[in-house]
Amino acid sequence: MGRESRNTATRRGFLKSGLAAGGALGAAGMANAAGAAGSAEIKVEPWMQELGPGVDAAPYGTPSPFESSVRRRNVEWLTADPVSSVNFTPIHELDGIITPNGLCFERHHAGVAEIDPAAHRLMINGLVDKPLIFTMDDLKRFPRENHVYFLECAANSGMEWRGAQLNGCQFTHGMIHNVMYTGIPLRLLLEEAGVKPNGKWLLPEGADASAMTRSVPMEKALDDCLVAFKMNGEALRPEQGYPLRLVVPGWEGNMWVKWLRRIEVGDKPWHQREETSKYTDLLDSGTARRFTWEMDAKSVITNPSPQAPLNHTKGQTVLTGIAWSGRGTIPRVDVTLDGGKNWHKARMSGPSLSKSMHRFYFEFDWDGKPLLLQSRAHDSTGYVQPTKKALREIRGVNSIYHNNGIQTWHVNEKGEAENVEVS
Amino acid sequence: MGRESRNTATRRGFLKSGLAAGGALGAAGMANAAGAAGSAEIKVEPWMQELGPGVDAAPYGTPSPFESSVRRRNVEWLTADPVSSVNFTPIHELDGIITPNGLCFERHHAGVAEIDPAAHRLMINGLVDKPLIFTMDDLKRFPRENHVYFLECAANSGMEWRGAQLNGCQFTHGMIHNVMYTGIPLRLLLEEAGVKPNGKWLLPEGADASAMTRSVPMEKALDDCLVAFKMNGEALRPEQGYPLRLVVPGWEGNMWVKWLRRIEVGDKPWHQREETSKYTDLLDSGTARRFTWEMDAKSVITNPSPQAPLNHTKGQTVLTGIAWSGRGTIPRVDVTLDGGKNWHKARMSGPSLSKSMHRFYFEFDWDGKPLLLQSRAHDSTGYVQPTKKALREIRGVNSIYHNNGIQTWHVNEKGEAENVEVS
Repeated sequence: MGRESRNTATRRGFLKSGLAAGGALGAAGMANAAGAAGSAEIKVEPWMQELGPGVDAAPYGTPSPFESSVRRRNVEWLTADPVSSVNFTPIHELDGIITPNGLCFERHHAGVAEIDPAAHRLMINGLVDKPLIFTMDDLKRFPRENHVYFLECAANSGMEWRGAQLNGCQFTHGMIHNVMYTGIPLRLLLEEAGVKPNGKWLLPEGADASAMTRSVPMEKALDDCLVAFKMNGEALRPEQGYPLRLVVPGWEGNMWVKWLRRIEVGDKPWHQREETSKYTDLLDSGTARRFTWEMDAKSVITNPSPQAPLNHTKGQTVLTGIAWSGRGTIPRVDVTLDGGKNWHKARMSGPSLSKSMHRFYFEFDWDGKPLLLQSRAHDSTGYVQPTKKALREIRGVNSIYHNNGIQTWHVNEKGEAENVEVS
Repeated sequence: MGRESRNTATRRGFLKSGLAAGGALGAAGMANAAGAAGSAEIKVEPWMQELGPGVDAAPYGTPSPFESSVRRRNVEWLTADPVSSVNFTPIHELDGIITPNGLCFERHHAGVAEIDPAAHRLMINGLVDKPLIFTMDDLKRFPRENHVYFLECAANSGMEWRGAQLNGCQFTHGMIHNVMYTGIPLRLLLEEAGVKPNGKWLLPEGADASAMTRSVPMEKALDDCLVAFKMNGEALRPEQGYPLRLVVPGWEGNMWVKWLRRIEVGDKPWHQREETSKYTDLLDSGTARRFTWEMDAKSVITNPSPQAPLNHTKGQTVLTGIAWSGRGTIPRVDVTLDGGKNWHKARMSGPSLSKSMHRFYFEFDWDGKPLLLQSRAHDSTGYVQPTKKALREIRGVNSIYHNNGIQTWHVNEKGEAENVEVS
């Protein structure tokens, strides 16, 4: 936070070059001065003269009708049935680092469990001294913490392994959201039950009809997992696990079991469907990487991008995007306008929190020629986001999961962007 | 952030005293063991067996129907007409520090201006070298910053000056919200226009039918004001100024002009209605304090509170609340269970950001006897939240604005809370 951009953006005359903005007022009144390229003018609009809707017109507010295109979207050919499907966060429409709850992408395996919280229970059983069943009221008597964490599906960008497929960062990178969770450290609930010495793994289970289960090592559970009941201040949304979800910071989203109803303690992993036939990374050798839980550092330019073209053809331009790492913070992002020939350090703005989304900006004076845009994240461990080429050399092109390669957008003279591959 | 509560909450057997929670599982199966006071049991529910709605059931998501009581509320007798009225954030239903956009309190003077962003303009005129008119597209070519700030109406808690009036923190303290803004430093737009040497004050003006105007000193504008277009990642909500609002961090909400259409630069304040007959603080002497912009440090316990009773009658209990200061951060909050005889240091959890809401907790083993709950915020300047008595000794009881006195809730043996005064 703070006033980090004081020095990078204090120059007066910011728009003097390539001015399409800020029409100067003529001495005679409201009309733009001759010579200014901008079309800005001021009219008396109805909303300046008429009373609008009063308070409580909607006790729970909704976005402006002019923002109706800001919505989650699926890719129809991707899945056979919406109950076992995904949609995508419109990251090209957002800024800052908080994802509004109504726009957090969905991934369900048996649709949304519509749970009555009064009937919901969380059981802890297996290798514990005292098996326990908690009501929601019980859980709210345990100490809570608040943390902002990104949640990324391991399959985010998965369709890009073999080349540029989808024309929009919503679809290539939109299986991510970033919210503030309020939850109970899982460690406290495990301590209450008393884990036996041979209890080394957990099996969280969802209360939806798919009974989603994943094996989670005890070390992670005791480190930073939360049993969360709020997101961005309010109750979890139904499609995000209401009333209870497991938060597994920095690790792949599939492990963040929604509608959490049970946590079994065991002495070894369970080898469930979602960690054998799914969520493993098939290599060229025919073997598969397993238990690749941690999300590597990654970034993407959200504006401009195929769904968000530039509305001008030269001059002062703002490029922005998001970056994140399952290992910590993102102290630095580089961007290139020419496909990697020259890299520039981006400006970060907003809180830098561990395992949270970060926001970067790069302002430049566009000469109107085509651009090849890329971003490259550095995380707090020193890891640098790789090229897709480097990833493919090691992992081949058969995987679906854990593609954190550098993304490229081509921007033409009209400001239109498309998803391209650079060698 | 981080793992701040490791040491305060690691003890096993957390609920052993006064156990009403976490029914132990009998060896025979799911039924609670005899002797456990909890009523928790597990049944097979419909949502565990049936497919729920698929993705995109609602492209923009909404809360669970079980959360329908979590909503903004007005106080009917308070204002004559909803177009010039207020409603209140349900702070007793929230946790963490982010207020969801749909729950941010409303305060309108001529209803909600329903603005087409393509038609919206921002003019900067008056004592500037180059008067300017910006479209929304123009503004998005300036550098942006992201900051979490609280917005509190100066009249928040105003009805409490003469004593306990309203039974619920939503009504006594709910004219506050806390979101992440994305906006352009106002300084950059003023530099673009070129402020003349005698330009010392600004008059931001709203595009609603009330044409809200307030005088803002140049020093504040150049310090940290933003011209914001996003809140919590997405476009401002209509009732929060869509498509553009002034953000005046730490200062009273009335100055955060919504539907911002014009900023005039002048050499002295304008003495508008909203800074003379309103938003001044009438003292016992018959004179009034003016230009009391900065919001003093304040806190309130949100749970338990009159709208949010305790659901148990003794044993382990979580108390939580919010604190904020217009001058910086909140490094410390104290709480008392006995009306101020004994004070305890609360546990803070969540990011500590300047001029942002902070969240505090205090966990205690309730003996079941009545409680007199209070909280007291300390801010980063060393200022300590005063008692109402101390405030009244200096300012009398005629004011409406800037009541940051310590709030008291009485909790009875049933766990029910009410708004009371302590001498």
